[in-house]
Amino acid sequence: MKLKKFISLALLSLFVFNIQAQEGYELWLDYKKIQDTTVKKKYASFLNNIELIGNSSTIQAIKDELQLARTGFEFENSDPSGNSKLIIGIQSNLPSSLKSQIDTENLGNEGYTITSLNNKETIVISGNSDVALLYGTFGLLREMQQKNDISNLNIEEKPKIQKRVLNHWDNLDRTVERGYAGFSIWDWHLLPELIKPEYKDYARANAAIGINGTVLTNVNSNALILTPHYIEKVKALAEVFRPYGIQVYLTARFSAPIELGDLDTADPLDEDVKKWWKNIADEIYSEIPDFGGFLVKADSEGQPGPFQYDRTHVDGANMLAEAVAPYDGIIMWRAFVYSEEDPDDRAKQAYDQFIPYDGKFADNVLVQVKNGAIDFQPREPFHPMFGAMPDTPLMMEFQITQEYLGFSSHLVFLPKLYEEVLDEDTFSDGENSPVAKVIDGTNSNKKLTGIAGVANIGTEKNWTGHPFGQANWYGFGRLAWDPYMDSKDIAKEWLKINFSNEENFVKPMTDLLIESREAVVNYMTPLGLHHIMATSHHYGPGPWVDDLGRPEWNPVYYHKADKNGIGFDRTSSGSDALSQYAKPIEEKYSSPETTPEKYLLWFHHLAWEYEMKNGKTLWDNIALHYQTGVEQVEEMQATWEEMEPYVNEREFEKTSMLLEIQLKEAKWWRDACLSYFQQFSNMELPEGVPEPEHNLEYYKSIERPFAPGINPSW
Amino acid sequence: MKLKKFISLALLSLFVFNIQAQEGYELWLDYKKIQDTTVKKKYASFLNNIELIGNSSTIQAIKDELQLARTGFEFENSDPSGNSKLIIGIQSNLPSSLKSQIDTENLGNEGYTITSLNNKETIVISGNSDVALLYGTFGLLREMQQKNDISNLNIEEKPKIQKRVLNHWDNLDRTVERGYAGFSIWDWHLLPELIKPEYKDYARANAAIGINGTVLTNVNSNALILTPHYIEKVKALAEVFRPYGIQVYLTARFSAPIELGDLDTADPLDEDVKKWWKNIADEIYSEIPDFGGFLVKADSEGQPGPFQYDRTHVDGANMLAEAVAPYDGIIMWRAFVYSEEDPDDRAKQAYDQFIPYDGKFADNVLVQVKNGAIDFQPREPFHPMFGAMPDTPLMMEFQITQEYLGFSSHLVFLPKLYEEVLDEDTFSDGENSPVAKVIDGTNSNKKLTGIAGVANIGTEKNWTGHPFGQANWYGFGRLAWDPYMDSKDIAKEWLKINFSNEENFVKPMTDLLIESREAVVNYMTPLGLHHIMATSHHYGPGPWVDDLGRPEWNPVYYHKADKNGIGFDRTSSGSDALSQYAKPIEEKYSSPETTPEKYLLWFHHLAWEYEMKNGKTLWDNIALHYQTGVEQVEEMQATWEEMEPYVNEREFEKTSMLLEIQLKEAKWWRDACLSYFQQFSNMELPEGVPEPEHNLEYYKSIERPFAPGINPSW
Repeated sequence: MKLKKFISLALLSLFVFNIQAQEGYELWLDYKKIQDTTVKKKYASFLNNIELIGNSSTIQAIKDELQLARTGFEFENSDPSGNSKLIIGIQSNLPSSLKSQIDTENLGNEGYTITSLNNKETIVISGNSDVALLYGTFGLLREMQQKNDISNLNIEEKPKIQKRVLNHWDNLDRTVERGYAGFSIWDWHLLPELIKPEYKDYARANAAIGINGTVLTNVNSNALILTPHYIEKVKALAEVFRPYGIQVYLTARFSAPIELGDLDTADPLDEDVKKWWKNIADEIYSEIPDFGGFLVKADSEGQPGPFQYDRTHVDGANMLAEAVAPYDGIIMWRAFVYSEEDPDDRAKQAYDQFIPYDGKFADNVLVQVKNGAIDFQPREPFHPMFGAMPDTPLMMEFQITQEYLGFSSHLVFLPKLYEEVLDEDTFSDGENSPVAKVIDGTNSNKKLTGIAGVANIGTEKNWTGHPFGQANWYGFGRLAWDPYMDSKDIAKEWLKINFSNEENFVKPMTDLLIESREAVVNYMTPLGLHHIMATSHHYGPGPWVDDLGRPEWNPVYYHKADKNGIGFDRTSSGSDALSQYAKPIEEKYSSPETTPEKYLLWFHHLAWEYEMKNGKTLWDNIALHYQTGVEQVEEMQATWEEMEPYVNEREFEKTSMLLEIQLKEAKWWRDACLSYFQQFSNMELPEGVPEPEHNLEYYKSIERPFAPGINPSW
Repeated sequence: MKLKKFISLALLSLFVFNIQAQEGYELWLDYKKIQDTTVKKKYASFLNNIELIGNSSTIQAIKDELQLARTGFEFENSDPSGNSKLIIGIQSNLPSSLKSQIDTENLGNEGYTITSLNNKETIVISGNSDVALLYGTFGLLREMQQKNDISNLNIEEKPKIQKRVLNHWDNLDRTVERGYAGFSIWDWHLLPELIKPEYKDYARANAAIGINGTVLTNVNSNALILTPHYIEKVKALAEVFRPYGIQVYLTARFSAPIELGDLDTADPLDEDVKKWWKNIADEIYSEIPDFGGFLVKADSEGQPGPFQYDRTHVDGANMLAEAVAPYDGIIMWRAFVYSEEDPDDRAKQAYDQFIPYDGKFADNVLVQVKNGAIDFQPREPFHPMFGAMPDTPLMMEFQITQEYLGFSSHLVFLPKLYEEVLDEDTFSDGENSPVAKVIDGTNSNKKLTGIAGVANIGTEKNWTGHPFGQANWYGFGRLAWDPYMDSKDIAKEWLKINFSNEENFVKPMTDLLIESREAVVNYMTPLGLHHIMATSHHYGPGPWVDDLGRPEWNPVYYHKADKNGIGFDRTSSGSDALSQYAKPIEEKYSSPETTPEKYLLWFHHLAWEYEMKNGKTLWDNIALHYQTGVEQVEEMQATWEEMEPYVNEREFEKTSMLLEIQLKEAKWWRDACLSYFQQFSNMELPEGVPEPEHNLEYYKSIERPFAPGINPSW
């Protein structure tokens, strides 16, 4: 073999110099070269002539970002500005000629405007704070990344929710509970001295999508994070994040006063305990004046809490709230609680525990509620608490990390799931009271609002492992800013920014993203099935599991399959969890005929022969849903193969390999679940559904002790 | 503030496109643009006209590498070749006109030649295998990376040691025992489907320095790695590594036949056990035909082994050796053993256990011996086994990860340490029998030779955490290839390749690297002190620790400080470990006066007032060594500050921040150890040594439960 002179230098150059970009490290801040010269000249004319008014670390961050964008877009100094100009400044600092044309009165502290003025020759980004200007700058750059027309801008944006935070379930040893993208990006051992570039890039990425807070530590918390040794490290991170408008929060272990050796009680009504937490707050705020506050998991899954002292959630939350109140700190008190003793339907318990305390929490407490009453399943009906606590600010907790949705190896576009929850009508304030209105405070005019996403971020070179995991982080941020956004629009936006705005790419890939969520529901838990995954790591199917210590830990508790049928009766003839919803829902869902089929087995136990809307039996429908899920993954593969021209080599290959895993596991779910349920149904598989590759014993024998995401402290 | 037009586009471009390069991901394969146009044209003339003879995955790897180099060096197609030509082919395939001029007869399978012929217009890389050509290609590229003159090459290189392997102490859950660079790069969960680009880049980097084997799993092993589920994953890695001449090895848990549920004994003389291991070998080799073999830690620190069945190391090793022998596999049997019951000096035990078996191991067994008899200390005398087993192939085990040398935050150039060990004369075959000659087989004409380095590699963006940690991986590889290399030459080579070949950089930085090893000895364990670090994680000083279960786990056991003095008497009046060395050493070291001062307290217990060669007391010398160590770090900082022009921004900043940590911890070691020892010496600190910042109780109270590198299974 004789090598000719090498010819593909340009291509190789891309390969060598953009390895990091190819890996996806830049997230949605990869300012790609703009190929269209007309568009490029237009954009460059504004970015080559910028007036940036102000003087702060946030203003410096804006300047840095604009430089990165100019370089990435490959604007040249020779691209003329003509009379074009970009002016960035808070409204009160704008030149008087502009001031009168820009109204920021109703934008609050974080909202911004982007306005074309002076015969469209000037673009003005304004707002009432430097952080608002940063958001506005990211807003304009986002337009450019999508190659949108910027000739006549009139954008007014304002976040609808105040506290938009990521929850990191990161432990101090850098393991991440339910983490599937490597390990924790917080390198505690080397902080505060070593400030990794990732910390700043994390802040940039979050600010770009409007996230303004981050809880650094796991809800299953370690008290050591509250000691001066760690606070010094937290402070170092807070200083990196501050210019980007991001507050840091920590998780507070309720028993910390005892564990750190100072007291022998953690009773929230004890004066010494109160004083202890006030001291901790004083210490933290003296180092981190804009510290956000605490997130608390109390009296849940073995975590300590006020119950031990015969106190209530309100006692616990308000005691901590008092400690941080002088500094405008908040407490996020989690409602994910279920009792070790209570034999009642787990789905009902959080509601039962919290509803009596509606209106009793301090003003700076948010009660953080998971989107559904069980636990971040592929599909759950919205949590009934959202319709039942008008006088308590409820914070939404979504999970971005895919604990129950295939880890980081399955392509599942979660904004579609989030949207479904946010859109559901709670009827809490009459018709048209969707969850979104509860969360953003519209419904009862709440003064404090919040939304949290359990992060899918780790040490993987592209942060999230799966290249499409980035879309879920992105989409969470966008919905946190505006919970009424259409998930399809988010998909398009992300696809254009991340890959290409060519229609032949955006159209099929938008469809793929939107369908991906239904695919995972189909091949894992169709028709309202839930919590039937393997134990502990939750990797793969485990509907047969029936030997765990507590009934509600076992999959058989949730699907209740027997020869008579399958499903959890939550109507009045069963656990009556349905009664926790508003009347219109309760009435509609009380009969299987009027229950949306996607929730059918969540609320009803039905015979295998039960006839569904399509005229087929329940058994056939279950089997066909599993089969459809597998076929949907095959379609995703086929679509993806066509996308090679629009995607860089590394991300293309990686996604192809991951789709192989997803297909393998979709088949595993289908075959294992159908093998198991078939024992009870005693019915043939319908046409189109292949016989399982192995027998049930094989699937039951699969053990994966080193599946990722298990907390080593368990 | 008003922004002018941006002017520093070129600089920014570097920043954006070379983030990955700036992080150091490319290791020593970062082919930087060659600035000198004369040199560039010269090099390009050869690389623009290549004849590559052969057809294999290794030949393809050579082709890929040359393409990367051409692109990185920024050769252009317009750079003319004239009559220059690079020919790469195994000797028997060369055109007959060249064949006669190239002699590869004594090069074995891996050696190569790089020769200028035809009026220096042709460079020929040759050897006897495709892998030899790959090594030769890397050899030529290394010359270019250093900007060396290539006009008249006459290089003949051949590795002096056969098995040059990395030992990964990586667990299946991706934690790394003694790992300080993040977590394991082996993403077992997503193998075999997901082949990360890192796997190939790992192979390239290793091949470039001549490493030809890798043990993927921890010596504290898990039997599951031997199951088909994992072998499929190992196979996928082996296939990535194969073109690069790298064999994979696994660790074998001795009790695997029991743990995997097949047998109720692991007795190495039991026929079923023998058959079991043969089956395992058959299964592995049917999937991975070039599988290297097993590394075994048996009867050591709780690991299972043959002793339980009243069998010997020879019984255990030879049984496994028989299983892999049909496939040319080898067994690396570790000699790091010490008994739970034996009250004798731990330093003596491995020798006592192994010497009786000299000559008894099977031909395909290497006994793997740590460089010193205790455990990878900042300084140890060479292990006496190296001088005492003429009829057994001994494999050197060095530690690249810095368990006892400041983790990944201290800059310590380890090749200096390795060189010191390799150069020590064992007298095993008369004078001039250095350890290197034992390892490379020269001394007793060994047929099997090997060297291992415990890897310092992890998920950090630059693989090793500390930018200078790369130099230790690099240097290990170079010394594994040629254990007689001068560590100073290695330092220069690495500095030139990695940063700059400018004299103003290379000269001071070479001095810095060479001195860095003595610095860490000074501020941690001067004058032969050893094993006085904190418990378990080994992070920071802990000379006071005296409460651990076994005597030889406690630092007080090793320094034996009391009011009469300090040091471990290993002469005939003490443990007599000294008698394990050859007579000339024993005689010389039996008196403190003739013992090299660097080993003084390793072999002698001496009074605080003992007068040393400089006329000062032992106490003063100890204190001054600690102080010198701190000052050396300060000097390193001062030197580094001057190097900014030669180093990219990110690595410059990162190293600066890490040097801050190193200085802080050097002072911590000095102050803690001197506070502690001063209780016994009751002597003042000599002039020039500051009083400790805190009192002894403070240092004793420091707890760092989340220091990295602890094995979660402990």
